[in-house]
Amino acid sequence: MKKGILYGVGIGPGDKELLTLKAVKTLESADVIALPDSLSSKNRAYEIIKDYINGKEIIYCTMPMTKDKEHLEKSHNESAEKIIKYLDMGKNTAFATLGDPSIYSTYMYIHRIIENKGYEVCMVPGVTSFCASAARLNMSLSDGSEPLIIIPASYKDNKELLRMDCNKVLMKSGKNISKVKEEINQCGLTDKTYMVENCGMENEKIYKDFNQVGEESSYFSLIIVKR
Amino acid sequence: MKKGILYGVGIGPGDKELLTLKAVKTLESADVIALPDSLSSKNRAYEIIKDYINGKEIIYCTMPMTKDKEHLEKSHNESAEKIIKYLDMGKNTAFATLGDPSIYSTYMYIHRIIENKGYEVCMVPGVTSFCASAARLNMSLSDGSEPLIIIPASYKDNKELLRMDCNKVLMKSGKNISKVKEEINQCGLTDKTYMVENCGMENEKIYKDFNQVGEESSYFSLIIVKR
Repeated sequence: MKKGILYGVGIGPGDKELLTLKAVKTLESADVIALPDSLSSKNRAYEIIKDYINGKEIIYCTMPMTKDKEHLEKSHNESAEKIIKYLDMGKNTAFATLGDPSIYSTYMYIHRIIENKGYEVCMVPGVTSFCASAARLNMSLSDGSEPLIIIPASYKDNKELLRMDCNKVLMKSGKNISKVKEEINQCGLTDKTYMVENCGMENEKIYKDFNQVGEESSYFSLIIVKR
Repeated sequence: MKKGILYGVGIGPGDKELLTLKAVKTLESADVIALPDSLSSKNRAYEIIKDYINGKEIIYCTMPMTKDKEHLEKSHNESAEKIIKYLDMGKNTAFATLGDPSIYSTYMYIHRIIENKGYEVCMVPGVTSFCASAARLNMSLSDGSEPLIIIPASYKDNKELLRMDCNKVLMKSGKNISKVKEEINQCGLTDKTYMVENCGMENEKIYKDFNQVGEESSYFSLIIVKR
């Protein structure tokens, strides 16, 4: 029997209308839907794609918010096994991942496990949170010959990169917002910094003045620092 | 009379199916379509959106491939004036820009001129060429705590950035492919480098082995260097 294909579908950061035509087509034609099951992204991913699920079976893949490698590896393997059960039945499975699958998605860990076992995998790119946030701020991220650095929340030495002569994006900085605010301030960049919290969602908040940002912030906070 | 709104619509890098639902809606509901008129992008942008033009008037905005600031400024101002004529008639205008408007788009120059004159402007984010290329290669751009640097074709010192401990994207490197190949080779990164030429188009070419890349390449060549 022909094995099913795993599709990693980027569904954008929040606004349903930022789904691509290809994402909609892939979700609609899949036999099974897989969704990340973590406190932060479960409901958000479901909300974005719920119009295209049409009663299909949903596989929830636990994505623990931990840095413990063994724990992570175990849960990625378990998620991969759950999906493989369906692929072995010949069922195409669409894994919905926030933003774009190539940019810091936990989906990729599962993608690589399943690909290494010889199954066909296929990525559908999506709109990133930083492009969507720049659009909400009505500004560019980079022009002309300016480089752009994307810094993930778990990066250790923000200040080193903040001091580079280029534009910066800080992903998912909400959890450490006090630390990040201080670093940006110490680098003298506060008046060149902008933030979008929960981009494209009902509770979206746009900060054109970074001084207005408080000591607490949503997990889905995206910071743009212009050179 | 109410002025029209300028929409900067990211239309993705080439594959029509990477248009977002919002891009399609914005193009379909606009009164006028604006398109970049440069040798490299005119036909590509038109091909991506032609199903949504429906006989609407098209404004072609000349985008000269020059670094002469005065010449560029003059042509951006001329394009802005062309668009403003329609906005003053109350006509909403959708400017179709390849990839995403916040990432090195020439659209932003026109956007800023028109915004500074007091008109309403609105950006619709799109899928970037680097996300689409990563998807075609079935690989991630960055995982976990790895930073990602986007380097535009016109950046002067690639080697300095190539030597950083992070993942890199080199945008539109086709024109200087010989120079870029040499730089990547000198940094010992050839076996960690991948390229997609004309991503999502009929003449797409995927290089999983960077040694296979020749001395000539399309303007729309995207290079990914993994750490």
